[in-house]
Amino acid sequence: MRPEWNNFVGGKWESEINVRDFIQKNYTPYDGDEAFLAGATQNTKDLWAQVLDLSKQEREAGGVLDMDTKVISTITSHGPGYLDKNKETIVGFQTDKPFKRSLQPYGGIRMAEKACTDNGYTVDPEVSEFFSIHRKTHNAGVFDAYTDEMRACRSAHVITGLPDAYGRGRIIGDYRRIALYGIDRLIEDKIAQKNSTGRVMDDWTIRLREELSEQIVALKMMKEMAASYGCDISKPASNVQEAIQATYFGYLAAVKEQNGAAMSLGRTSTFIDIYAERDLAAGTFTEEQIQEFVDHFIMKLRLIKFARTPEYNDLFSGDPVWVTESIGGVGIDGRHMVTKMSFRYLHTLTNLGAAPEPNLTVLWSTRLPEAFKKYCAKQSIASSSIQYENDDLMRVTHGDDYAIACCVSSMRVGKEMQFFGARANLAKALLYSLNGGIDEKTRKQVGPKYRKYEGDVLEYDKVVDAYDDMLEWLADVYVNTLNCIHYMHDKYCYERAQMALHDRDVRRYFATGIAGLSVVADSLSAIKYATVKPIRDEEGIIVDFEITGDFPKYGNDDDRVDTIAQELVSKFMTMIRRHHTYRDGFPTTSILTITSNVVYGRATGSTPDGRKAGVPFAPGANPLHGRDTHGAVASLASVAKLPFNDSQDGISNTFTIIPGALGKEDQIFAGDIELDLSK
Amino acid sequence: MRPEWNNFVGGKWESEINVRDFIQKNYTPYDGDEAFLAGATQNTKDLWAQVLDLSKQEREAGGVLDMDTKVISTITSHGPGYLDKNKETIVGFQTDKPFKRSLQPYGGIRMAEKACTDNGYTVDPEVSEFFSIHRKTHNAGVFDAYTDEMRACRSAHVITGLPDAYGRGRIIGDYRRIALYGIDRLIEDKIAQKNSTGRVMDDWTIRLREELSEQIVALKMMKEMAASYGCDISKPASNVQEAIQATYFGYLAAVKEQNGAAMSLGRTSTFIDIYAERDLAAGTFTEEQIQEFVDHFIMKLRLIKFARTPEYNDLFSGDPVWVTESIGGVGIDGRHMVTKMSFRYLHTLTNLGAAPEPNLTVLWSTRLPEAFKKYCAKQSIASSSIQYENDDLMRVTHGDDYAIACCVSSMRVGKEMQFFGARANLAKALLYSLNGGIDEKTRKQVGPKYRKYEGDVLEYDKVVDAYDDMLEWLADVYVNTLNCIHYMHDKYCYERAQMALHDRDVRRYFATGIAGLSVVADSLSAIKYATVKPIRDEEGIIVDFEITGDFPKYGNDDDRVDTIAQELVSKFMTMIRRHHTYRDGFPTTSILTITSNVVYGRATGSTPDGRKAGVPFAPGANPLHGRDTHGAVASLASVAKLPFNDSQDGISNTFTIIPGALGKEDQIFAGDIELDLSK
Repeated sequence: MRPEWNNFVGGKWESEINVRDFIQKNYTPYDGDEAFLAGATQNTKDLWAQVLDLSKQEREAGGVLDMDTKVISTITSHGPGYLDKNKETIVGFQTDKPFKRSLQPYGGIRMAEKACTDNGYTVDPEVSEFFSIHRKTHNAGVFDAYTDEMRACRSAHVITGLPDAYGRGRIIGDYRRIALYGIDRLIEDKIAQKNSTGRVMDDWTIRLREELSEQIVALKMMKEMAASYGCDISKPASNVQEAIQATYFGYLAAVKEQNGAAMSLGRTSTFIDIYAERDLAAGTFTEEQIQEFVDHFIMKLRLIKFARTPEYNDLFSGDPVWVTESIGGVGIDGRHMVTKMSFRYLHTLTNLGAAPEPNLTVLWSTRLPEAFKKYCAKQSIASSSIQYENDDLMRVTHGDDYAIACCVSSMRVGKEMQFFGARANLAKALLYSLNGGIDEKTRKQVGPKYRKYEGDVLEYDKVVDAYDDMLEWLADVYVNTLNCIHYMHDKYCYERAQMALHDRDVRRYFATGIAGLSVVADSLSAIKYATVKPIRDEEGIIVDFEITGDFPKYGNDDDRVDTIAQELVSKFMTMIRRHHTYRDGFPTTSILTITSNVVYGRATGSTPDGRKAGVPFAPGANPLHGRDTHGAVASLASVAKLPFNDSQDGISNTFTIIPGALGKEDQIFAGDIELDLSK
Repeated sequence: MRPEWNNFVGGKWESEINVRDFIQKNYTPYDGDEAFLAGATQNTKDLWAQVLDLSKQEREAGGVLDMDTKVISTITSHGPGYLDKNKETIVGFQTDKPFKRSLQPYGGIRMAEKACTDNGYTVDPEVSEFFSIHRKTHNAGVFDAYTDEMRACRSAHVITGLPDAYGRGRIIGDYRRIALYGIDRLIEDKIAQKNSTGRVMDDWTIRLREELSEQIVALKMMKEMAASYGCDISKPASNVQEAIQATYFGYLAAVKEQNGAAMSLGRTSTFIDIYAERDLAAGTFTEEQIQEFVDHFIMKLRLIKFARTPEYNDLFSGDPVWVTESIGGVGIDGRHMVTKMSFRYLHTLTNLGAAPEPNLTVLWSTRLPEAFKKYCAKQSIASSSIQYENDDLMRVTHGDDYAIACCVSSMRVGKEMQFFGARANLAKALLYSLNGGIDEKTRKQVGPKYRKYEGDVLEYDKVVDAYDDMLEWLADVYVNTLNCIHYMHDKYCYERAQMALHDRDVRRYFATGIAGLSVVADSLSAIKYATVKPIRDEEGIIVDFEITGDFPKYGNDDDRVDTIAQELVSKFMTMIRRHHTYRDGFPTTSILTITSNVVYGRATGSTPDGRKAGVPFAPGANPLHGRDTHGAVASLASVAKLPFNDSQDGISNTFTIIPGALGKEDQIFAGDIELDLSK
């Protein structure tokens, strides 16, 4: 056994890259409470004060403090950067100093240029020229492949938020592998993978071999980057500080090369805890020291920043990175996976204060230890900064070493990845089916030229029939648009750092998403149970609806409408599955617009449920605001009926309870939750 | 009809891109002699004197007069360049002045750097860095995909001359289309092609759509480049000068972006003649003026230059471009296609003197008009600068609008292209089969670890059996190596300019080639008919052979050995066909090492035919030098037995006849000829 692995319980993980096996053989479940936790050290306080000061300066500067305009970001493009070298126990910034945003044009030079100009900077003209003429970008490639129809769908917002001008994100490297094995071993493994491909050089094999070569380059660069900080990650980490540092360097390499829509961290706390337990037992570090490492790690994660445009920030409501870290959960052997490190991670909300990043996500189970549940509640109340997801549900399909990318996308760490797919606007598609494919806002023929709805009253069967045809068209153009995007992202903006920390053969989820679910459910319910008359303008385009009578609304545990929502999800997923997917991606869908529902609503005309043009959709799978009149439980019950098997990329429900509703004035619970929909 | 087309006979070519139809409807066969030809004008003489002076300066400078080290060559990267603007009737250089070699790193930055340093120049460090880090090249991509085995085969020269570090070439754009249709119409056509792809975005469709987009960009750039010379090629050419100029601009665009192993021109003379005939009839230009246009065009083609390394020049014996122009031939309607322009092209050998470029290639047929045949012979004797190919043979498979790429590769212009495949060294493979895959020069295990040949005497059946196994291995690794090369060339060094002048759906020939044919034939003959004893060194490697008795040698019309050669070609082609080819390429092979046979021989040990280690192979399909002892006819008869159906990329025989052999002292015929092997 390697000296760095002294006192670890051996297993398959020694002879193969298998972090899960290491975790399961070595982690120590913790049932106690938070009493053991240590406060912030003076160094931590000093560093955080520095961060707060820089954040203030950044706000005063209009949102950005400094930007690279000439140096193109790679894993090794920058020398080391520090807040205060003498005080930092975990080091590493994306550029050579904190708060300086890097230049990442691989996804698209125009987006990179615009991110600069919108913030008062200008990309070096030689860089612009080079990326316009000689070095094609993902964005340029996608638009070369798009059909006119795809462009029209994109402009009209019937397909929205497509990752065609920026990094797709949603890929989580298994950053823990660097800590456990060291880079040299990982390179050996990748070389063995290259030697394991078949003799027939078809396109798939050639692409795989090139990708593996790129991954090896990335691993070598990670080692070089760490060395610039005085750290040797060629070999395994020998203590908890090194383990955190090595894990962070892996993540840092990823964010140096990818400005993705969500750059999540994975599931590191239980893994890191194994090192902490060993160090505590050996007296290598004190609890205070270990908490300091964690605080500094989390501080670094809070400082991940990208150069982005106002439009991007508008779509995603802020400047999110989605450094999602998945905490807790239960193992498939029945032992819960809460460790002292789970507490330490959440404790940063105390030591450093509340923050949206990293997106601390508790994998919730009824079987989590009571003390931890209480601590979660306490920290939620104090910070409103914890996301909860249903581990009991996801463990069934994903086992016990999955993590969440972005907000709800679950994937086995290092074994599965996602092709991010943004969203189809199902509410707009309903209007297209009534208006014969003509967009109600732009008046352009976007969808196919099917017959317009001609009657004076909307008849349910006729509407559903036309809607089905339009959805079939939408699923077709949507999946094929995503095929173009992912082909080009692999070609021009491949995630070599993240994929270097994956197995050779990964499962690729081909994610799609839907927006406007509750609007469509209520619209169809209104058509079925009330009387809905279309109002046409002088061009014969239906622009509004007149509703007579009441109708059941989604969010009240009423099967008459909830069934419509359920069927819609299953129906659209079936249509998605009909199509060829890039790299044989496994098709999934999600219902998870947490913030962008506002933008999507803005782009959509009045709908037959009485929602007026421009009014926001409900977020994710939520009932439309104010329509769930039968109380929280009924509202949640409606959402819980949605079929997870037809929405495997996640179902999101944004739920806020005012303190009084829970009977105690000091409690508030807010955030996005994923419900256990299997029940 | 467009005004530029006045007096042309209409047809399908008006409503579709169909240059052949235009030619067939409009060309005027010419049965007369060369009496009509005009001499060089004073301007031509002045310009050519300038060229000779610059050529002298170039030689004195050590082979290169000037090189770009910073500007990366694209269709529009350079402003206009001239010899003497006032005297040139056909304009355009690859860079902003004649004799300045352009920088083309897409194929490989190291090759581009080496071409500079070997000639005393240094590539700008920013360009080097950019192409090393951010803009991958064909060369880098190929080596990422190669297996260790492929690298070993390449290093050992059992597969040789692979286009993995430079442009593959061998693609001929239909440059005439620009003259006939103008760029705008071609862009329209390409947009229609983009709109004609299917809805399913699989990898093939996405790649095609991206390529069509790139082609449209290239067409737009051609227009811009021409405009910088004051020429408008957006519309069809309206006279012969414009037709030549437009055709040349198309070719110029190709050589500005591709430094290919062979950058051939196509089959332009009969096409151009149609414009000349119209202009002569209308009195627009005199014969002297038209000859001046042609002289200036040919002068430009002679000045096409690339930045290359000494190793490249060694492999290809000189600094060839293979600006092959195919002249004459017979139409499928039986009319010969010789026109006055055929004479004018060959007449440049008089007006400008002899030159290896452009590679003027007469498509020979027994049915060419007698006067033209005689003129060809006369010009050949005077210049030794004409290549002859068998039109009667190639017309069967390729029709009457094909052209030759490089020396013997035939393809329908604008409808077929070739993936160039270099050569497999069949003589070395024979040694591998005896030495159990161990290379006789490097002592490395390159081939599979089959049993070594163990007896004291080589037994024919045992040798052939082992050789078959080794050839199967060689065909496998060879085709798969080429698969890597062409995948990466498309990815990193796509020929957008040339492919913009092709149809949407082209046939792609997947070319392979063989070297050492006569060496293997004679070796197997020696083993069969004489007694060959292997001589082993202390390591047990066979390093030489002792031959007792005589044996039939290839090149004497002796079926005992000629059959061996025939069977070898068919056998290897069958093995090649067994494998997956990139983009469903149509597999072919060629026997055509015109010069590189020297290099291949140098890398190959002693062979069982008595040829000693390092001694050159015979070129192409030739008998080994001095072994064809039964006269020219017998020698040619042996070559003529080779099966063209199993060697569709061409069979080359280098043949020199001293004047006395033909009975007249003033005749000499030298050059590479393609025999009619169907008889």
